[in-house]
Amino acid sequence: METPEQGLHVYRRVRADSEWLCAPLAIEDYVIQTTPEASPAKWHLAHVSWFFETFILRPYLPGYREFHADFGYLFNSYYEQIGRFHLRAERGFLSRPTVAEVMRYRTHVDQHMQELLEHMDAVLWPLVKARLALGIHHEQQHQELLLTDIKRNLAANPLYPAYRDDLPAPLPQQAPALAWVEFGGGLVEIGHAGNDFAFDNESPRHPVYLAPYRLATRLVSNAEYQAFIADAGYVRPELWLADGWTQMRSAGWDGPLYWLHTIGEWRHYTLSGLQPLDPEAPVCHVSYYEAAAYAAWAGKRLPSEAEWEHAAAGLAVSGNLRDSGWLCPLAAAAGDGLLQMYGDVWEPTASAYLPYPGFRAPSGALGEYNGKFMCNQIVLRGGSCVTPDDHIRPSYRNFFYPGERWQFQGIRLAEDL
Amino acid sequence: METPEQGLHVYRRVRADSEWLCAPLAIEDYVIQTTPEASPAKWHLAHVSWFFETFILRPYLPGYREFHADFGYLFNSYYEQIGRFHLRAERGFLSRPTVAEVMRYRTHVDQHMQELLEHMDAVLWPLVKARLALGIHHEQQHQELLLTDIKRNLAANPLYPAYRDDLPAPLPQQAPALAWVEFGGGLVEIGHAGNDFAFDNESPRHPVYLAPYRLATRLVSNAEYQAFIADAGYVRPELWLADGWTQMRSAGWDGPLYWLHTIGEWRHYTLSGLQPLDPEAPVCHVSYYEAAAYAAWAGKRLPSEAEWEHAAAGLAVSGNLRDSGWLCPLAAAAGDGLLQMYGDVWEPTASAYLPYPGFRAPSGALGEYNGKFMCNQIVLRGGSCVTPDDHIRPSYRNFFYPGERWQFQGIRLAEDL
Amino acid sequence: METPEQGLHVYRRVRADSEWLCAPLAIEDYVIQTTPEASPAKWHLAHVSWFFETFILRPYLPGYREFHADFGYLFNSYYEQIGRFHLRAERGFLSRPTVAEVMRYRTHVDQHMQELLEHMDAVLWPLVKARLALGIHHEQQHQELLLTDIKRNLAANPLYPAYRDDLPAPLPQQAPALAWVEFGGGLVEIGHAGNDFAFDNESPRHPVYLAPYRLATRLVSNAEYQAFIADAGYVRPELWLADGWTQMRSAGWDGPLYWLHTIGEWRHYTLSGLQPLDPEAPVCHVSYYEAAAYAAWAGKRLPSEAEWEHAAAGLAVSGNLRDSGWLCPLAAAAGDGLLQMYGDVWEPTASAYLPYPGFRAPSGALGEYNGKFMCNQIVLRGGSCVTPDDHIRPSYRNFFYPGERWQFQGIRLAEDL
Amino acid sequence: METPEQGLHVYRRVRADSEWLCAPLAIEDYVIQTTPEASPAKWHLAHVSWFFETFILRPYLPGYREFHADFGYLFNSYYEQIGRFHLRAERGFLSRPTVAEVMRYRTHVDQHMQELLEHMDAVLWPLVKARLALGIHHEQQHQELLLTDIKRNLAANPLYPAYRDDLPAPLPQQAPALAWVEFGGGLVEIGHAGNDFAFDNESPRHPVYLAPYRLATRLVSNAEYQAFIADAGYVRPELWLADGWTQMRSAGWDGPLYWLHTIGEWRHYTLSGLQPLDPEAPVCHVSYYEAAAYAAWAGKRLPSEAEWEHAAAGLAVSGNLRDSGWLCPLAAAAGDGLLQMYGDVWEPTASAYLPYPGFRAPSGALGEYNGKFMCNQIVLRGGSCVTPDDHIRPSYRNFFYPGERWQFQGIRLAEDL
Repeated sequence: METPEQGLHVYRRVRADSEWLCAPLAIEDYVIQTTPEASPAKWHLAHVSWFFETFILRPYLPGYREFHADFGYLFNSYYEQIGRFHLRAERGFLSRPTVAEVMRYRTHVDQHMQELLEHMDAVLWPLVKARLALGIHHEQQHQELLLTDIKRNLAANPLYPAYRDDLPAPLPQQAPALAWVEFGGGLVEIGHAGNDFAFDNESPRHPVYLAPYRLATRLVSNAEYQAFIADAGYVRPELWLADGWTQMRSAGWDGPLYWLHTIGEWRHYTLSGLQPLDPEAPVCHVSYYEAAAYAAWAGKRLPSEAEWEHAAAGLAVSGNLRDSGWLCPLAAAAGDGLLQMYGDVWEPTASAYLPYPGFRAPSGALGEYNGKFMCNQIVLRGGSCVTPDDHIRPSYRNFFYPGERWQFQGIRLAEDL
Repeated sequence: METPEQGLHVYRRVRADSEWLCAPLAIEDYVIQTTPEASPAKWHLAHVSWFFETFILRPYLPGYREFHADFGYLFNSYYEQIGRFHLRAERGFLSRPTVAEVMRYRTHVDQHMQELLEHMDAVLWPLVKARLALGIHHEQQHQELLLTDIKRNLAANPLYPAYRDDLPAPLPQQAPALAWVEFGGGLVEIGHAGNDFAFDNESPRHPVYLAPYRLATRLVSNAEYQAFIADAGYVRPELWLADGWTQMRSAGWDGPLYWLHTIGEWRHYTLSGLQPLDPEAPVCHVSYYEAAAYAAWAGKRLPSEAEWEHAAAGLAVSGNLRDSGWLCPLAAAAGDGLLQMYGDVWEPTASAYLPYPGFRAPSGALGEYNGKFMCNQIVLRGGSCVTPDDHIRPSYRNFFYPGERWQFQGIRLAEDL
Repeated sequence: METPEQGLHVYRRVRADSEWLCAPLAIEDYVIQTTPEASPAKWHLAHVSWFFETFILRPYLPGYREFHADFGYLFNSYYEQIGRFHLRAERGFLSRPTVAEVMRYRTHVDQHMQELLEHMDAVLWPLVKARLALGIHHEQQHQELLLTDIKRNLAANPLYPAYRDDLPAPLPQQAPALAWVEFGGGLVEIGHAGNDFAFDNESPRHPVYLAPYRLATRLVSNAEYQAFIADAGYVRPELWLADGWTQMRSAGWDGPLYWLHTIGEWRHYTLSGLQPLDPEAPVCHVSYYEAAAYAAWAGKRLPSEAEWEHAAAGLAVSGNLRDSGWLCPLAAAAGDGLLQMYGDVWEPTASAYLPYPGFRAPSGALGEYNGKFMCNQIVLRGGSCVTPDDHIRPSYRNFFYPGERWQFQGIRLAEDL
Repeated sequence: METPEQGLHVYRRVRADSEWLCAPLAIEDYVIQTTPEASPAKWHLAHVSWFFETFILRPYLPGYREFHADFGYLFNSYYEQIGRFHLRAERGFLSRPTVAEVMRYRTHVDQHMQELLEHMDAVLWPLVKARLALGIHHEQQHQELLLTDIKRNLAANPLYPAYRDDLPAPLPQQAPALAWVEFGGGLVEIGHAGNDFAFDNESPRHPVYLAPYRLATRLVSNAEYQAFIADAGYVRPELWLADGWTQMRSAGWDGPLYWLHTIGEWRHYTLSGLQPLDPEAPVCHVSYYEAAAYAAWAGKRLPSEAEWEHAAAGLAVSGNLRDSGWLCPLAAAAGDGLLQMYGDVWEPTASAYLPYPGFRAPSGALGEYNGKFMCNQIVLRGGSCVTPDDHIRPSYRNFFYPGERWQFQGIRLAEDL
C-alpha cells in the first residue's frame, strides 16, 4: 500500500467485504442489540465510515462536509476527545438511520475517499497513508465483530435462526493426539518488528526472559472439554479463580456459551443455526476463567503472550481464518509441530493486557484506540475462524475481559519444562 | 355484531386499521423496544393475531393448525395458564420473525377467521361471538399501544424522527377559562349497564355513595402546568406523595415526559417530531404522581373514578379521539359544561384499580386478562387522542402504575363542595 | 389525658415501656439493620425522642436547646419539611451515638418534657396536648416496630438467637372450626368518631355502601396455610395477582417469612428463637399477595376495610395484644361470633390505602405523618400480638406495601353473601 | 521462631496486638460494616482465631473440640474447600456472637495453642511451624485491615467520630523537592530469597529483564495532587484508563476518598477525625486509576513491581510503619536516595497481580490463600503507616482491585531513562 492508488484499491476491497458479510441479513437483523457488547450490524457499518470521515476526510479533504450533523454523536464509539457520544448499551434503540441511509452514508464516505486518494497531495500522503492503514485494519476488526455480534444477537432468539444456510458443513475428522513442543526460553524478543502495519499496542519490541516451557500441539477439543464438565469442572471451586467462580455461579454457566444440553446430547448454536457438537473440533466460546479452570483441571496452565509469540515466530501465518469460508473452528488436521496457532479460535493467554515497556499512547484522540483499555483485560493471540486472513500476525494482541465469552475463543495449554 | 357476517365485517375493519397505523413505519421501526413497557410494533401485530388463534381458532375451528409452533411462546403476552412465554423486556431482541413473516401470520389468521365465520355453527356462535368481541376490543387496545409505543421508541432516538410528517398542525386556539360543574352526590350507581360489550373489570354495576363534588370543566393546560413548574413544583416535597417524590428525584424528572427545555423555551416530542409547546393544549405525558402533585399545588384534588363516571353519565361519547386524525391533544374549544371528558388525554383518578364489589375473574386463561392486575395501579378514564372512537365508553377503566408516563395522560381537577 | 399532669404520667409510662422492651438486648443488638425497612433498636429509641424534641420542645419550651446539633439529621425519619435527613437504608451504619448516648438523649428529652408539662401555660396546653398525644401514639407505633424489627434483624443471624428466653410457651389448643358471621350491608359509616385520639387518616367519618357479606369467625391457621402450600399454592399462577407472582418467584418464597423447611417438618423463627410450628395458631408473616392468593385458593376473598370496621364496631377492643405477654399469635379459643379481631396478627384488607373522602393532610411537617403515604399500600386492621393494648381501635388504619412480610400479619377471609 | 517456645512467644505478642488495636472501640463500633469490603472489627478478631483453629488445632491437637459448631460457617472468609460460609456483604448483620463471646473464643483458641505448643511433638513441629508462621502473618494482615476497616466504617458516620483522640499530631514539615534515582536495568532477579517467612505469591525468585528507569525519590504529596485536581484532573478523559474514567464518573469522585471540599479548603477524615490537609504529606486513599491518571498528567508512569523491588533491594526495611504510632502518612524528611519506600502508603505498581513463572498454588484449602485472586487486581508494594513493622519485606506483594480506595495507598512515580 505504498501509493494512493494501492491504498484506494485495498480500501475498496475491504469496504466491499463489510457489505458482503452483511448481505445474508434481513433488514430487521441489522437493528438488534441483545447485550451491550454486541452492537447492531448497522452500527458497525456506520461507525467504520465515521472513522474514515473523522480521522481522514475532515482533516485532509478540503471542503469536506460531513454526511449528517448528528452521526458524529451516534457513531463515535468511545473517543472522548472527539466529543460526547451515544450510550453503547443503547445502540439497539435506534431504528434510524435506516439500513438504506447507512448504505448511503457509506457511499458518501467512499466517494470522498476516492476523491481524496485520486488527487492525493504527495506531502500529505505519508500522514494519510498511516491513517488509511489504521482505518482499514479498524474496519477489518469490525468485520470480525460483525460476525461475532450477529451470532450473539441471533442466538438470543428462541427460533435460533441461521446467519447463513449455505455454509459448508465440516467433514468429520479425527484430531491428532495432543502432544507438546518444547522451547528453551532465555532472553527473547517480542513485539512488532519491521515496517508493516501493526497497532500501537504491539510496540516497542523488547526483551523478555522466558523459563523453558512447552506448548500443546493443538487446541483443546470439545470432547476434552466435555470430560472436564463430566468431572464436575463447573462444581469444584479449587479449579477456579475467585472472580471466575463468582461470575460462573451467579450467571449459572454449566458449559460454553451457545451450548444447549438436551436429553442425551449437547448441541450448540453456530452461524448455521443449531448443530450437533463435533467432539474433535476445538472448544469455542469459553471465557478466560473457563480456560484457566480447564488448564488447572488438566494440571497444566495457559501460555503467557510472550511464550505464544516466541513459539509462533517461525510459523506461517495461515490456518482456518475467515477467508477459508467455514466460519467455525475445525478439528485439527494431522501435522507436525504446532497446529492451529492461527485461526480457529483466539487463544487466551495468562498475560494481563498491559503496555509494553516504553509504550506511550499517541497524543490526540487516536491515542484512545488501544491505550486506555490496558487494564482488567487479558491478551488473546492467533486470530479465529472469523478473522480476515490478512489481518493477523505474530505480534497481534487482542484483548477482552476475563468473563467474556461471545468471541470465538478457545484454549491452548502450556506447561513448565 | 349480531351475526357472524357482521362479526367478520367488524373484524376485517379493525384488523385493517392495525396495518394502516403501521404503514408509515420503516422496517427498522417495527423492531425496536427502548424500554420494557414499549413493545415493538411487530410484536403487537403478531400478539393480537396470536390472541385470535389461541382463544378462537384453536378451540373452535376444527383441524386448525397453528401458523408456527414457536409463536405461542413468542407472542403470548402474560397468560400463565396458556404456557411459558418470552420475557417482556426482550421483545426487542427478536429480529425474526421478520415483518413480512408477521404479515403472513396475520393473513393466515385472517383467512381462518373468515373460514370460521363464513361457516359458523349456530350453536357455537354465542361462544365465538363473545370471544370475537373480546379479540376485536383487544386489538383496538393494542392499536392505542402501537401509537403510544411507537412514540416512546422513536423518542429514544437523538434524531427525533417523526412517525408521520403529514399530520395536520393544530390551529392556535384559546382554551376557555377553567370553571366548575357541581354534582350533589348521594348514592349513585357505576359500572357497565346493558348488553353492549364491556370488559369484565367494568362489572358488576353497583351503588357507591358520593359526597357532593365539583369537576373542572376542562383539562389542565400546558400553560397552567408550566406555572406549576415555575413555582418550584418539582422541588417542593410537601406537594408530593412519598413514592412520587422518590421516583421523581431518582429519575431526575423536571417536567412531563417528552418535554425538552432549551434556552428560552420548552419543546416537546410528538408523533410529528419535535414541536413547540402549545400553551393552551392539555398537558400530556404526566404520571399520576405529577397529576396529584399538581392538584395539591392548585389546592384541589383528582376525581375518584366514581365521581368521573357519574359526571360523564349523560354526556355524548365524543371528542378528540383517534379517528379525528390529530393524534395529539388539542386546546379545549369553547362550550358549556364538561369539556374534553372523552379523548385528548386519559384522566388519572384518585382511585386504585381494584375489583368492583362482587367481581370474580372468569375461570381459565381469559380470567388473566384484567383481574390479576388489580393491585398497585390507578384507574384512568375517558380515552385519549390515540383511542379508537368506538372503543371508549363511560364505564371504561384503564389502569397504569402511578409512575408511568408514556401513555397519553393528563390532568382533570376535582374538589369537595 | 386532660391535664398536663395526666399527660406527663402517660408520657412517662410509655417512655418507660420503650426502654423495658429493649432491656433484653445486648449492646450489639441495638446497632444492626439487616434490611432497609428494619431499623436498629437504637435508632427507634432516638427517633421517638427527636419527635418530641422537634414538634414540642423546640416550638413550646422557651430557651430549649437541642441535645446535639446533628441528631436532627440522624433521627428525622422522613419529614422533608423539617430538613435533610440520613438515608434510611444506612441507619445500621452508625455505631455512634452509642446506646449510652442515646439513653442520655432520652433522659435529656424526658427532663425537658417534665419541665414543660410541670409549668404548662394554660393557653398553650391545647396545642401541646394534641402534639403530646400524637407523640405518645407515635412512640407506641415504634414500640411495635421495635419488636418487629428486632425479630427481623435477629432472624438474619444463622445462630437464630432469641430476643428473650423467658417468654411463656403457648399451651397446645385446638382452634374452633372456621365459621362465618353475616352482615347485611347497606349504607354504613366508618371512620373515627368521638374525641379520643385518632390519627388523621382515620377521618372524616363518612358513609360507605356495603353489599351483604360474611366474615370468617377466626384467622386462617398454620395448618390451613400448610394445606395451601401442599396444594401447590406457590406454583399455580391463577391464584396470584400478577405483581405478587413476580415478586414471589423472583424472591423464591415457598412459605411465610421465618418458616424453615427441614426434613419432615416446618419450623419458624420467633422471638423465642426457632420453634416448631403450632398448626392451630394463626399463620403469620405472610404478605398481602400471599393472603390474596390463599383467599383465591379457598374460593373466598379478603374483606374491605369498611367491611372489617363495620363488623368490628360492636366488639370489645381486646385480644392477644402485646401486654398479654405472649408476643406471638395464639390459636383461637372457643367462643361465639367473631374471634381474634384484635390482636394476634394484623389483617390485610382488600382496600388500598387512600384518603377518606374529605381528608386533607394538616399543613406543615406533621402533614407528612400519614398523608404522603396514601399510594401503593394496602390497609391492615386489628393490631397484633406486638401492638400495645391501648393503641388499637376500630377505626385504626395500618398500611404496608403488598409485598412486605416482616410485620405480624395474617389472613382473615370474607365472602359475598 | 525456631522452637515452639519462640513460636508461642511471637504468637502471644501478635494476638495481644490485635486486642490492643481494638481497645479504643465502643462495643457498637465492633459491629458495623458499611461496605462489603470493610468487615466489622468483631469479625476480624474471630476470623483470625478460626484460622488457627481450622488449620492448626483441628489437624494437630488431638481431641481438640471447636469452640462453637457454627463459627466455621460464620468466620470462614473464603476457603471454599473448607465448606460453605456466610456472605461477606452480610458480616455486619450479626450482632451475635457478641464482642464478649468473641473474646472468649479468642481465649479458647489461645489456651489450646498454648497447650499444643507447650507439648509439641518434635516430628510435627516443622509442619506446625509453617502454619503457625502463616497464621501469625495472617493475623498481622488483619491487623492492618482492622485499622483500615475501622476508618472506613467510622467515616460513614456524619458525626465523623475519631478512632482515637490521643494520636500524636504530625509536626509541619517541608518535604524535600521531588528528585529521581536512576537504575540501569538489565536482567535482574525478583521474588523471595532465603528461608525467612514469605507468602507463596512471592516465589519463585526468577529473572526479569528491565529497561533502564528512574524512580521518584519520594511519594506524591497532597499539594501536588491538589494541583492535578486544580488542573481539571478529574475532568480530562485523556488522562484516564477507560475503566477508571467510567468508575470515577459514575461514583462521582472529585478527589481522594475521605477528602471533603468545604468552602476555602479541603479537609480529610483520619483516624483522629476530621483534620486539615497537610500539603506536604503524601496523598493517600487514591485508587490505582487515580494514581495512573495522576502519573499521565505528570508525564510519568507508575513503576512495575519488578522495578520497585529491584530498587528497594538494598534499602533498610524501615519507615513510617504502624509501630511508629502516627497511623497517618507523614511528609518526607530530608534525606538521600529513595525515601518513603517502606511505610506511609502502599505504592500501586503498573503490574497486574499474576503468578510468578513456575508458581503453583499449594494443594488443599491453604492454596486458596493467595493463588485464586491472581486476576483483575494490581500489585502494591512497600507497606503503609498501618502495616506492622515486622510484616513487610522487599518481596511483599499486596494486591487490590484498581478501583479500590479504602486502603492507605498513594503514588510513587517512575519514568523511562
